[in-house]
Amino acid sequence: MLKPLNIGMIGYGFMGRAHSNAYRQVNQFFPLKHRAVLKAICARDKNKVEEFASTWGYESTETDWKKLVERKDIDVIDICTPNHLHAEISKHAAAFGKMILCEKPLSMNAEEGLEMVSAVEKAKVPNMVWYNYRRVPAITLAKQIIDSGKLGRIFHYRSNFLQDWTINPELPQGGAALWRLDVASAGSGVTGDLLAHCIDTAMWLNGPLSTVSALIETFVKERKHNLTGKVEKVGIDDACTFMGRFANGSLASFESTRYARGHKALFTLEINGEYGSLAWDLHDLHRLSIFDYKEDSLTRGWKSVHVTDGEHPYMKNWWVPGLQIGYEHTFIHQVADFIAALESGTNAQPDFRSAYQTQLVLDAVLKSAREKNWVSIAY
Amino acid sequence: MLKPLNIGMIGYGFMGRAHSNAYRQVNQFFPLKHRAVLKAICARDKNKVEEFASTWGYESTETDWKKLVERKDIDVIDICTPNHLHAEISKHAAAFGKMILCEKPLSMNAEEGLEMVSAVEKAKVPNMVWYNYRRVPAITLAKQIIDSGKLGRIFHYRSNFLQDWTINPELPQGGAALWRLDVASAGSGVTGDLLAHCIDTAMWLNGPLSTVSALIETFVKERKHNLTGKVEKVGIDDACTFMGRFANGSLASFESTRYARGHKALFTLEINGEYGSLAWDLHDLHRLSIFDYKEDSLTRGWKSVHVTDGEHPYMKNWWVPGLQIGYEHTFIHQVADFIAALESGTNAQPDFRSAYQTQLVLDAVLKSAREKNWVSIAY
Amino acid sequence: MLKPLNIGMIGYGFMGRAHSNAYRQVNQFFPLKHRAVLKAICARDKNKVEEFASTWGYESTETDWKKLVERKDIDVIDICTPNHLHAEISKHAAAFGKMILCEKPLSMNAEEGLEMVSAVEKAKVPNMVWYNYRRVPAITLAKQIIDSGKLGRIFHYRSNFLQDWTINPELPQGGAALWRLDVASAGSGVTGDLLAHCIDTAMWLNGPLSTVSALIETFVKERKHNLTGKVEKVGIDDACTFMGRFANGSLASFESTRYARGHKALFTLEINGEYGSLAWDLHDLHRLSIFDYKEDSLTRGWKSVHVTDGEHPYMKNWWVPGLQIGYEHTFIHQVADFIAALESGTNAQPDFRSAYQTQLVLDAVLKSAREKNWVSIAY
Amino acid sequence: MLKPLNIGMIGYGFMGRAHSNAYRQVNQFFPLKHRAVLKAICARDKNKVEEFASTWGYESTETDWKKLVERKDIDVIDICTPNHLHAEISKHAAAFGKMILCEKPLSMNAEEGLEMVSAVEKAKVPNMVWYNYRRVPAITLAKQIIDSGKLGRIFHYRSNFLQDWTINPELPQGGAALWRLDVASAGSGVTGDLLAHCIDTAMWLNGPLSTVSALIETFVKERKHNLTGKVEKVGIDDACTFMGRFANGSLASFESTRYARGHKALFTLEINGEYGSLAWDLHDLHRLSIFDYKEDSLTRGWKSVHVTDGEHPYMKNWWVPGLQIGYEHTFIHQVADFIAALESGTNAQPDFRSAYQTQLVLDAVLKSAREKNWVSIAY
Repeated sequence: MLKPLNIGMIGYGFMGRAHSNAYRQVNQFFPLKHRAVLKAICARDKNKVEEFASTWGYESTETDWKKLVERKDIDVIDICTPNHLHAEISKHAAAFGKMILCEKPLSMNAEEGLEMVSAVEKAKVPNMVWYNYRRVPAITLAKQIIDSGKLGRIFHYRSNFLQDWTINPELPQGGAALWRLDVASAGSGVTGDLLAHCIDTAMWLNGPLSTVSALIETFVKERKHNLTGKVEKVGIDDACTFMGRFANGSLASFESTRYARGHKALFTLEINGEYGSLAWDLHDLHRLSIFDYKEDSLTRGWKSVHVTDGEHPYMKNWWVPGLQIGYEHTFIHQVADFIAALESGTNAQPDFRSAYQTQLVLDAVLKSAREKNWVSIAY
Repeated sequence: MLKPLNIGMIGYGFMGRAHSNAYRQVNQFFPLKHRAVLKAICARDKNKVEEFASTWGYESTETDWKKLVERKDIDVIDICTPNHLHAEISKHAAAFGKMILCEKPLSMNAEEGLEMVSAVEKAKVPNMVWYNYRRVPAITLAKQIIDSGKLGRIFHYRSNFLQDWTINPELPQGGAALWRLDVASAGSGVTGDLLAHCIDTAMWLNGPLSTVSALIETFVKERKHNLTGKVEKVGIDDACTFMGRFANGSLASFESTRYARGHKALFTLEINGEYGSLAWDLHDLHRLSIFDYKEDSLTRGWKSVHVTDGEHPYMKNWWVPGLQIGYEHTFIHQVADFIAALESGTNAQPDFRSAYQTQLVLDAVLKSAREKNWVSIAY
Repeated sequence: MLKPLNIGMIGYGFMGRAHSNAYRQVNQFFPLKHRAVLKAICARDKNKVEEFASTWGYESTETDWKKLVERKDIDVIDICTPNHLHAEISKHAAAFGKMILCEKPLSMNAEEGLEMVSAVEKAKVPNMVWYNYRRVPAITLAKQIIDSGKLGRIFHYRSNFLQDWTINPELPQGGAALWRLDVASAGSGVTGDLLAHCIDTAMWLNGPLSTVSALIETFVKERKHNLTGKVEKVGIDDACTFMGRFANGSLASFESTRYARGHKALFTLEINGEYGSLAWDLHDLHRLSIFDYKEDSLTRGWKSVHVTDGEHPYMKNWWVPGLQIGYEHTFIHQVADFIAALESGTNAQPDFRSAYQTQLVLDAVLKSAREKNWVSIAY
Repeated sequence: MLKPLNIGMIGYGFMGRAHSNAYRQVNQFFPLKHRAVLKAICARDKNKVEEFASTWGYESTETDWKKLVERKDIDVIDICTPNHLHAEISKHAAAFGKMILCEKPLSMNAEEGLEMVSAVEKAKVPNMVWYNYRRVPAITLAKQIIDSGKLGRIFHYRSNFLQDWTINPELPQGGAALWRLDVASAGSGVTGDLLAHCIDTAMWLNGPLSTVSALIETFVKERKHNLTGKVEKVGIDDACTFMGRFANGSLASFESTRYARGHKALFTLEINGEYGSLAWDLHDLHRLSIFDYKEDSLTRGWKSVHVTDGEHPYMKNWWVPGLQIGYEHTFIHQVADFIAALESGTNAQPDFRSAYQTQLVLDAVLKSAREKNWVSIAY
């Protein structure tokens, strides 16, 4: 008999759906001692939150997040709100001894992030941030290969996240579906939204970034604001490019934009080492490209590994070789790892402290772009 | 409030899991008036069936399929057994007025299939066969394009299903996970297992096949049989190639094997018409390749459509553009379509009659291979 | 100082250009003891042949091929005429002791081919047929891998040649550029034109075909004939599909058509063995795809080898790694190999006898299609 | 009868071969009024230069480049020497009224480049720099599409040139084949060798770069020097990354390295505009990727155009659709364009002035990397 792990979720947007699905799916596919229970969902609009609860099978609803946080029957607070609420909710939840799963980026800036880290560490509550791409099987496989040392000395790491959904200048900013375009809710544009993913994955795979030089641009300067109804200055960055150095001496090239026509969600990464290279992209997330210099030189080439075999990370829990899983599975894997870590007394990664390091890089990137200068990062 | 649709499933192997998942997932993603309820799961091994029920949330278990079929609280019988049981269970379920969802291929042969068609048509029970690939969004999109007439006169249709999992001659035949290698349970080898999918999809997209000439081969002639413990003759076909003509005058090229090293589940299809062509494969199931001859000749080429936009078939119910779904979703779509058809009083496809036509082709293919001759197909 | 090898070419169409280029290029890139000399070009139209001679640097012209063949200053007769003239010219050239390089297919049919073989073997003149694709570096590399035994027992060989240039029914048949559509000049359609390449390469890589069953179709039944000015029945095959068995027990799947919209010259091949597979296509001729089952199972996948390194076949004579060569280079390689064989006293392949075996398969394919039956091939 | 255009070439390395081939090939494929004549080849080693002359058909040899430049029977001086000799030879050749074709990069630095521009403009001699990639048919096609305005406002341009041939620290620097690693001969490393190509193509397609910030690295700090026999400091850059802005407001991301394991010569480029995007890479140089936002949204995707049709740039002069050309053809196209420009009284591009602008960017990039600051570029 599985023990219940009672989830209280705040927010029911895109991420609220992805997380709810993960909780519902994890126990059919991963052998665990706890069952994720959809105990309560919280959002301000009473009708909508009840409809969401009904669709997803939440046992109860709340419209005041503080009430949810304070409920005794909740073990885990899952924060799926816009970024500007992460800190306040996290600190309150920590104070009430709740485990906390927080959407990325951790915070509006590093300072706020540090307060959150302090809060959870002081409260000694399990905590994790939803940098879900670490749990793409192909990326987990990349991590195993890199950790094995097979690539040798690393020379280069490059990563892009290219989208095209905000090119239309008639698209407004702010409000439910568009808070990512509103600097007051999001803190930044592509930097916190997309580069945050690139950086979390990069530092997981290749260690800390030590210095950066960045360039940002807002192509569309004004957009109608959904909350005020007025045309307002756009405060977020539409595009951000940065270069830099990792602590291991390798060079960094990063780029993100929402103005790369033809790319829906093209998160790419590539790492080049002395003896091999790896490459991956989100548009075919079930594949990993590998170049192994130590293979016979006559037949050496880039290999496309269809990461769907039983021995590939996470895949024995799914179907049979050749049958791909998708985006939503990364969240299921993260919940499975979180619960397994709980059960073994370890801390699932990335926790708040790890996510805070990404926050330090994001701050450095934005500072560099503002000041047109190189910025060093101390962790 | 959704009305319950009570499912009784027989069998809990690979397909049992895929279907159970579909029933659990459909209502969170597709707006329907009925909720699929996992009422009962049936299999012979009491311990295992209870464990499966516990994992997947089935309300009850049975070990005798006849008892399940006869239960008053079951609306739908879902048959996930090896092929040799499809007919008997279907006929019994029809007699008890159950809706029937049957795994593919419909039957061991066309004769048996015809009896099943008669049974469900006489009983007037909704019925459907799990040719799930029709519900890959990229294939549904292909269907829309073909039906629009954009391709013009069709000249060629080719389809392969290439695997490599039975090359090792030490692999035994028969028993739980390996019944597909045992002719007594499976009826045939790749023909019924893999070509059945190719043919169902082909005839859905391009209309009926009218004549075929086939070649089959069993590369490994003897394997240990798991049920008898003895080395026995292998009765199934390891590979099957056939060519033929469709009723619309286009030429057919089909091939299936479990001896194509490097291909896990490479179901491919391509259709060539006067004004355009389409191609797809299962290893990147979220993509459709399109060639449109009417485009500007200077910039004409094969287009790779990442079938993940809201306007693509089924995709508005999932995530956002660029984020792919996987294999399991095809079953969810099929359940959604089945329930929607129920609610609108139509019959979801492919029903038993449609699947019987595929059975006629399979019989013709095997007959042609046996007799080394061309065989015509009358539907 | 290089010794001259005097070339007399008959025909100046597409192949005349490709061969002339090969003779002009070979000595700058391949170290040989003979220099190919463009001694004479022969064709019926005096003005055009002189213009061609001037463009390409031929020393002289002829308008009567018999005169050319009989000239004492010619060492090699290169036959680039339509197929129906191959036999007569070859036999005459053999009688005059000339070396003969003949375009493919060798002849209109196997019977005629056998006479040609007898003629050159009796005359003991070096002879070769322009099945140029053996000299694509990626295909030569495939040959080396197969010959090494690395693939183990072979199960499947499949090869297509898909084009789309004759779909338009207004395209006429016959005459200079369109003799390939005229059965009187070409002998057959895609079978002799395209499948001949597939078969030559297949038998070089995988040994002889032993039995075939074929299907042919002429989609456009009548076309205006350029020589008569009248609409006439089309005598060639527009599409040909065949399956069969190789002597080594592997299965064959072949298809060719000029009605596959979107494919310009998509010659593909794939071979599946116990321990590995290879695949290649002409649209990216500088790449070879390799699957090696013996690699570490965790990181196994299809490799795309960019066949441009110095150690790859023929490539040390060209540029530097990463810089691709193209279609025309296959002819240069064939000339280099022919001259090198001359110098070492061996016979460059494929010679007439080897090409005659392909002719036997072509005859069997056409017979099978005509008689709707399986046909065995004895060499 | 074609008029002779007498070529005198200095240097016979990799580029010497590529240019010689271009002169030999151009008149068979492009209808021109002049014939390129290989009049003289010049290099210091008498034996080697004579062997090269014999292989390639040069009429005469020189061992002193000044003598060559001063010969009356030479129309064109083609400079294929290491970079440090470009300026002196160019200025001398201009003084003697010769047309000058100079390998890229134009010069060791912008100052030197400006002197060269002044020299040829004062002497009014036709001049051109071998930025050959403009003549890849796919890139020329990209230029046509961009110039048509179809992409709308441009947001991003990114370009990489990734190689892996110098990773081995045992590779020496300097001397015949390795002068590119010797700062005294090359001026810089990947910046002048590889980024120069990226920048020339970028500014041709997307207009001038206005500001850059760069990062360079020398991974292997010391190498044996072939000329001195001693281990010496490596003065070149092994890798260079830069970001910046184009005058049209789009953002630039550039990267080059010789330490990207698995990439032989992966020159890539991508341009993202409001209504479409284009992408290309050198490893499949005969393909152009196109995304056209104005296509039907249901079937929109990245198109891979096989740039081998008669209506594609340069391609009607080669073979038939589907048959690719390679690297060497870019030089043939450039010679054809140079001669055609001569005949029409225009100046083939890029001329020295155009290449000087690339030199200004290269200087800015190196300055920025040295000073760790943004640098503006005034043309």
